[in-house]
Amino acid sequence: MYTVEECQHRIEKELAAISLPVNPANLYDPVRYMMNMGGKRIRPSLVLMGCNIFVDTIEEAVNPAIAIELFHNFTLMHDDIMDRSEMRRNKLTVHKKWNESIGILSGDAMLIKAYEFLNQIPADRLGEIVNVFNSTALQVCEGQQYDMDFESDSGITIKEYLRMIELKTAVLLAASLKIGALIAGSPAADADRLYEFGRNLGIAFQLQDDLLDVYGSIERFGKQTGNDIVANKKTFLLLTALHRAQGEMMERLTGWMEQKVFERDEKIKAITALYDELNIREITRREITFYQECASRSLNEVQCDTVRKQPLAHVVRSITDREK
Amino acid sequence: MYTVEECQHRIEKELAAISLPVNPANLYDPVRYMMNMGGKRIRPSLVLMGCNIFVDTIEEAVNPAIAIELFHNFTLMHDDIMDRSEMRRNKLTVHKKWNESIGILSGDAMLIKAYEFLNQIPADRLGEIVNVFNSTALQVCEGQQYDMDFESDSGITIKEYLRMIELKTAVLLAASLKIGALIAGSPAADADRLYEFGRNLGIAFQLQDDLLDVYGSIERFGKQTGNDIVANKKTFLLLTALHRAQGEMMERLTGWMEQKVFERDEKIKAITALYDELNIREITRREITFYQECASRSLNEVQCDTVRKQPLAHVVRSITDREK
Repeated sequence: MYTVEECQHRIEKELAAISLPVNPANLYDPVRYMMNMGGKRIRPSLVLMGCNIFVDTIEEAVNPAIAIELFHNFTLMHDDIMDRSEMRRNKLTVHKKWNESIGILSGDAMLIKAYEFLNQIPADRLGEIVNVFNSTALQVCEGQQYDMDFESDSGITIKEYLRMIELKTAVLLAASLKIGALIAGSPAADADRLYEFGRNLGIAFQLQDDLLDVYGSIERFGKQTGNDIVANKKTFLLLTALHRAQGEMMERLTGWMEQKVFERDEKIKAITALYDELNIREITRREITFYQECASRSLNEVQCDTVRKQPLAHVVRSITDREK
Repeated sequence: MYTVEECQHRIEKELAAISLPVNPANLYDPVRYMMNMGGKRIRPSLVLMGCNIFVDTIEEAVNPAIAIELFHNFTLMHDDIMDRSEMRRNKLTVHKKWNESIGILSGDAMLIKAYEFLNQIPADRLGEIVNVFNSTALQVCEGQQYDMDFESDSGITIKEYLRMIELKTAVLLAASLKIGALIAGSPAADADRLYEFGRNLGIAFQLQDDLLDVYGSIERFGKQTGNDIVANKKTFLLLTALHRAQGEMMERLTGWMEQKVFERDEKIKAITALYDELNIREITRREITFYQECASRSLNEVQCDTVRKQPLAHVVRSITDREK
């Protein structure tokens, strides 16, 4: 059995071995730049682990794993343009380092590259797995579109928010595991259980991200906290607060949200205090625990030796370890 | 045997039957808008004709043909953003009618949709055909990148220009025919001959486009002439003129190119006069004829009854019919 760390290490090795043409440099340099930015490589690792739960050799899962990582980075490159993000992992985003046209076109090339790696899947499983990949990829686009639509929509419900993060984030983790399982030739029912496992895992991950933006520490989490608060980002925490706040508390909350000019730290402190009064931290933690438990239940139902589930069970626990 | 018109008609029917989700509307409405803009559907028709040259039934070629048309429209949607084009076929471009983010994301969805249609190809030919599609798709991206790079490069040679239009335009026509042939189960050598046919056809088409921008009439060609001249676009005509002009003529040519403020019609008239003096129309026509003859030669070599080649031979002749 491979641990998460061993899978991540294998993925890094494979990514380093990808060979891209030199020219046109403005097309392929940004792809290299993006793929070398690092990251936890969680999605491709899940492909390997989804395979490894059923069979000992993960070789056939490597190419689809690289495809998933290329796809994920393609979405990041295009999302950065749409979100006007200037930095990613302490480096300039592609469209800032080069320009927007290059960000669009290099992203397109990465998506096509992803399909090149997918196309290495053995012929007897190719069609089925590409099918999973395609419908997931479209869902990720739908999630990004809803995310953008929500920015200018003040009436978003918590349910709509959860559906959005499911599409934008969770289904790709789910599909990564399912594709790994299908590569291993697992029964369809078990591949679907792993999909459910990944879907719930992904929602838990995103909610934990929302939580850490407010309650994480910069050393542990690696990014400055409070960015969502400053931007009025409609996270699970803010939507829950808007749902629960009444009277004077609601006035304070919306007052801060409408404020055009403010002291960054002051707003973060004030909103965090409101969250504390409304018990938002505990409510979010309970929500995360709910999705972790859903994930664990699906994992338990997978028909295989319990010991083979250990690495994935460890991933579920690691979500809440990120909080300090 | 199906004529070009019958193929185009079949493609229109299939495109009208594509069913896309209603929501999110900002993701799928632009796809519908783009696919309903019309156009000659030449690429998907070539898929059907490439198949029909070898077998009577073209049913299996329909899905890959739709994939090719989706891919082509995906490139147009993203190119329009990169080129800052505001109009296409007398309608607002997607990024102008909606916004740039929506143009990026809807384009992404179209590319994924293309792969959904490709994935309907029978399993025994799927991997091989997707391989052709992927390498072609990457080449089209490379062509677009070279096209953008060339804008700010004053030292482009005619050879580099021809390679650029080969990548940006010709290889997709070539691959369309080859994919049709492979669907039909043609011998590899014949599929490659059709590829060569399409590659030369595509270059001839693009050169004719360059020619028509200067010497086409607006009624026949459907767009205003002289746009390339006004924008100093490095077409085959301009590059050839820059290659041939000397002394006073070179001064007049570069003088007009450097002019920041000018009367549109005056510049078109002056540059056209220079082209006339330099015999550019005739040189371009000869170049087009060269690629038409290369195309015809490849078509002649395809191992099948001559009568089956008639519709494709007709396409070669139609290129120069566009000029009036």
